[in-house]
Amino acid sequence: MKNRIRLAVSGLVAAAAVAAASTASAQFAKPEDAIKYRQASFTLMSNHMGRLAAMARGAQPFDAAAAQHSAKIVEMISQLPWDAFPAGSSGGAAKLKGDLWKDAANFKKYQDDLKLQVAKLPAAAASLDGLKAQLGPTSGACKACHDQFREIR
Amino acid sequence: MKNRIRLAVSGLVAAAAVAAASTASAQFAKPEDAIKYRQASFTLMSNHMGRLAAMARGAQPFDAAAAQHSAKIVEMISQLPWDAFPAGSSGGAAKLKGDLWKDAANFKKYQDDLKLQVAKLPAAAASLDGLKAQLGPTSGACKACHDQFREIR
Repeated sequence: MKNRIRLAVSGLVAAAAVAAASTASAQFAKPEDAIKYRQASFTLMSNHMGRLAAMARGAQPFDAAAAQHSAKIVEMISQLPWDAFPAGSSGGAAKLKGDLWKDAANFKKYQDDLKLQVAKLPAAAASLDGLKAQLGPTSGACKACHDQFREIR
Repeated sequence: MKNRIRLAVSGLVAAAAVAAASTASAQFAKPEDAIKYRQASFTLMSNHMGRLAAMARGAQPFDAAAAQHSAKIVEMISQLPWDAFPAGSSGGAAKLKGDLWKDAANFKKYQDDLKLQVAKLPAAAASLDGLKAQLGPTSGACKACHDQFREIR
């Protein structure tokens, strides 16, 4: 019984994710537009995560204002790419592995976890110790999704 | 005398722009990284300007929440690309014409005008009439810079 409820809930979450994706896909005339949009989001996030990582490991001097600026950009832009995965947008320049539309519940879980972690990043980035403490869980949330869904080329 | 002052001020603005660009270029290991970063910013801005334009011309139904969401994204992301023009980053995938580093004062003027216009966009996008009124000056600010500095391919 417990398993049946869990399955039903998981099915609802997946259905909701698919519904959200369908609505969102109306924002993109072609799958390539969605791919370009989400990759642009990841490019900006990756750049600013790189700046934060460079400060955290001492490759660049820590600058609280610059760190918080980058952290806020990461937080803001991490809201964007999820609407840009319309069903089947896996060809061309897409770097996907597996089938995230079949595993929509898991894909959503990764998004939620990332949002949770990036929300803590701007305040944490006010100090080097705070940045160091929050950067791991944040990049871990990126990596969890990449490990399952991103093709490395 | 007036001309001399104007030239001196214009020289200072250019020097400041070059100084800012030099500092910023430290954020990018290679010119290609800067090109990728600024193009990612323009991709996201262009997508959301497109959504706003579709509502303004009636190709999509006007939705105040969606319009303000897009307007805020345009405003936020329009702050980003200007640090990603380190001197000489004009090769490879760059789509530049002219020499924006020689004409740094003008390049800066376009940025400032864009920032001025996009700052008005979120409030304007609360109504269809407001959106229609503010979209022209905003895309005009994009276009002014594109006309001088963007190579069309």
